[in-house]
Amino acid sequence: MNGLTHFDASGQAHMVDVGDKPATRRLAVATGRIDMQASTLALIEAGNAKKGDVLGVARIAGIMAAKKTSDLIPLCHPLALTRVAVEFELMPASPISSVRCTVSAETIGPTGVEMEALTATQITLLTIYDMCKAVDRGMQIHDVRLLEKHGGKSGSYTAP
Amino acid sequence: MNGLTHFDASGQAHMVDVGDKPATRRLAVATGRIDMQASTLALIEAGNAKKGDVLGVARIAGIMAAKKTSDLIPLCHPLALTRVAVEFELMPASPISSVRCTVSAETIGPTGVEMEALTATQITLLTIYDMCKAVDRGMQIHDVRLLEKHGGKSGSYTAP
Amino acid sequence: MNGLTHFDASGQAHMVDVGDKPATRRLAVATGRIDMQASTLALIEAGNAKKGDVLGVARIAGIMAAKKTSDLIPLCHPLALTRVAVEFELMPASPISSVRCTVSAETIGPTGVEMEALTATQITLLTIYDMCKAVDRGMQIHDVRLLEKHGGKSGSYTAP
Amino acid sequence: MNGLTHFDASGQAHMVDVGDKPATRRLAVATGRIDMQASTLALIEAGNAKKGDVLGVARIAGIMAAKKTSDLIPLCHPLALTRVAVEFELMPASPISSVRCTVSAETIGPTGVEMEALTATQITLLTIYDMCKAVDRGMQIHDVRLLEKHGGKSGSYTAP
Amino acid sequence: MNGLTHFDASGQAHMVDVGDKPATRRLAVATGRIDMQASTLALIEAGNAKKGDVLGVARIAGIMAAKKTSDLIPLCHPLALTRVAVEFELMPASPISSVRCTVSAETIGPTGVEMEALTATQITLLTIYDMCKAVDRGMQIHDVRLLEKHGGKSGSYTAP
Amino acid sequence: MNGLTHFDASGQAHMVDVGDKPATRRLAVATGRIDMQASTLALIEAGNAKKGDVLGVARIAGIMAAKKTSDLIPLCHPLALTRVAVEFELMPASPISSVRCTVSAETIGPTGVEMEALTATQITLLTIYDMCKAVDRGMQIHDVRLLEKHGGKSGSYTAP
Repeated sequence: MNGLTHFDASGQAHMVDVGDKPATRRLAVATGRIDMQASTLALIEAGNAKKGDVLGVARIAGIMAAKKTSDLIPLCHPLALTRVAVEFELMPASPISSVRCTVSAETIGPTGVEMEALTATQITLLTIYDMCKAVDRGMQIHDVRLLEKHGGKSGSYTAP
Repeated sequence: MNGLTHFDASGQAHMVDVGDKPATRRLAVATGRIDMQASTLALIEAGNAKKGDVLGVARIAGIMAAKKTSDLIPLCHPLALTRVAVEFELMPASPISSVRCTVSAETIGPTGVEMEALTATQITLLTIYDMCKAVDRGMQIHDVRLLEKHGGKSGSYTAP
Repeated sequence: MNGLTHFDASGQAHMVDVGDKPATRRLAVATGRIDMQASTLALIEAGNAKKGDVLGVARIAGIMAAKKTSDLIPLCHPLALTRVAVEFELMPASPISSVRCTVSAETIGPTGVEMEALTATQITLLTIYDMCKAVDRGMQIHDVRLLEKHGGKSGSYTAP
Repeated sequence: MNGLTHFDASGQAHMVDVGDKPATRRLAVATGRIDMQASTLALIEAGNAKKGDVLGVARIAGIMAAKKTSDLIPLCHPLALTRVAVEFELMPASPISSVRCTVSAETIGPTGVEMEALTATQITLLTIYDMCKAVDRGMQIHDVRLLEKHGGKSGSYTAP
Repeated sequence: MNGLTHFDASGQAHMVDVGDKPATRRLAVATGRIDMQASTLALIEAGNAKKGDVLGVARIAGIMAAKKTSDLIPLCHPLALTRVAVEFELMPASPISSVRCTVSAETIGPTGVEMEALTATQITLLTIYDMCKAVDRGMQIHDVRLLEKHGGKSGSYTAP
Repeated sequence: MNGLTHFDASGQAHMVDVGDKPATRRLAVATGRIDMQASTLALIEAGNAKKGDVLGVARIAGIMAAKKTSDLIPLCHPLALTRVAVEFELMPASPISSVRCTVSAETIGPTGVEMEALTATQITLLTIYDMCKAVDRGMQIHDVRLLEKHGGKSGSYTAP
């Protein structure tokens, strides 16, 4: 066995049996950032204050995407999310500014919610790209990763 | 006007009118990479040759996600993709190895397919994360961006 | 705090944490009606008896829509419905006739099912509109509201 | 024949053949309103200015729902929307205040977009209900109807 | 090259490029049957006449499934169906009775609609199974196949 | 009462109340086969060994389809699958060869998972059809049925 649990002993993909795992409270936090021109971040900031709320739309997209995770990731178990929250941090700098997105997801169930938190992060960042691409096609998404997870037999994980 | 076309003159989000734009052939290429431990990449490579085909599953996830783009990105127009292809490049190195994913998407329509190529890239990389997370929770996704796009009034774009 | 629980303390939308709420039996009943020409209602009645079963199709659409509620309403928690039923009351009158639709939805979970009952009501009524619009474009939907809900910490609600 | 085109000559439901209809530009405008306590509308108005953007979230929900119309309405043809816009009018009054929502939808295709405009209207109003139900369970949705449609063989329709 | 067009020259799955194929009118007809006890068919027949319309519900399920084909079949191109019709033939016999389902699907586009016709057939038959399984768990689905297809460069196909 | 539980006493379709049924472990196994030319099976076999992994793609399609069951089958309750596995048996013969697909599905809940196992079987077989149709349009799907189910008040079922 190679440790890749999404494959059975003969190497075929399957949705792993979690029927024997107890339903416990699970939390995962993921993060990622999108780099952009300083002028693009300025537009986003102006929009939040006045009009053209890029981050408000992106937040909704991320929350809705979290609910679609098992539809997107082939071997992911469906689960009933009990909480999703999306936070933004604006990081103005020159010449490259950024928006950092951090997503917390929770459920009570037999499997973790890392993929839900990561999927919400990715779609939130992509939505920012979509909404700003008319002025900045060169935006880049970086540093998408799991920050921490809690609950379940494997215990807590905190990114180093 | 601030150049963010997804908002109208009063700053409200809308799905932009593309009814006057001719249907032309559109191509977009996006890329991104996932960093992992060298031992994780070794497992992926072994799987491709023998069993446990991580990249084969991730490729299918990416192609299917491309078709869901307008369901995920709020202001994205629905369109009928005419082609999607997902390529991988394995980049073994020590201590950090990587898989690079590059997606080409095409349509014939009034709008571009950047978001489809980027969405497929994100979900492909996330699926690799999902399938390997049991052995490597610290994987990170970086450098997700548009490489090139062609077709439409705004002409071609090639990443610098 | 303004009482709008779908926003956090800083006014940002989030999917509210229901992880501490016990799973209890929840019932909600919603209703709504569509007004139409008397001749349109006559066609619907004829169809039920003989052919062209407008209400049968609309009922199925409503039940299926109830299952999509958390996919449609951004901050709605996903939940596993344990029952959905759609009832119709035909109200012939002159010059305006109506069909009233009443939906009951149930689950066992930490959140209520008002939105599921209301969504099913709306899509049931819209499907009636779709199926009859070739003969009556002026149909109107009115009086869509929650009739009652039971279960959960906030207790029962019955419309005045 | 009874004029209900969604049934064939034997009374069975079908998706009508539109293969012979030319692709023309289609526009539909639908509207509807949600009645609420004056204090609920005051909260919505405050949110737009400061925090807790009920209408911003509802608008995104409506636009996304327009794209799901053929998935919700059983006999509706799938089509590629070229534009969706959601407008709100706040109508403060005592004791019943309202928010009116008006949706414009467009496509270039063989079928009209009434159902897309109406579906977006319904889900927009339902999302307002969802976001305010913690303070006002008695909100009611009224007067959902088609205002106008243009394009296609049957010509223009304007509500009387 | 082995003739399996869903794989590229290196054997990797892709969504085939159809961007150079002209949009032509496409028709496909698929069929399949579900075998059951004679008493089960008798219940279905009674339901059509009086109450419990198994075939009416199954027909709607099939039409809606046709619209989801590209969401279910990984390498299938999305397309805009212009017509879907589901026909039933009841075949009472002893001891095994059957319902035959035949689906016609049409589009105007660069790819055929065989998969849409076959998917609708499969889900229609499965829905009959679902609705009758409480009285007959041993029902079997057989003989699901393409009857004919027309349109496109490869010309017409008629099952032998 | 005729025993068709998906209809109420008045013959109207409903989603049956399962709120009083305890959540127990449920298992269902379904099977089906697709017949093809011997040369088509040879291509599939070659692909598994070298390139063009038809069965690998079909397996993923089936697992993902299992998660969409309640979205496809109108009166099916949504449930959280805890395991899905898809097995293949290649049956070379002349002139007709076959691939048999067997799916196991599990959940812990108030309703069975027969429909999930059957839906996964159907979509797996359809995906094989899709991937091989360029070389063999005459493939036929046969013998789709429930092999066994366990758990729940009605007890175990094993196909005769």
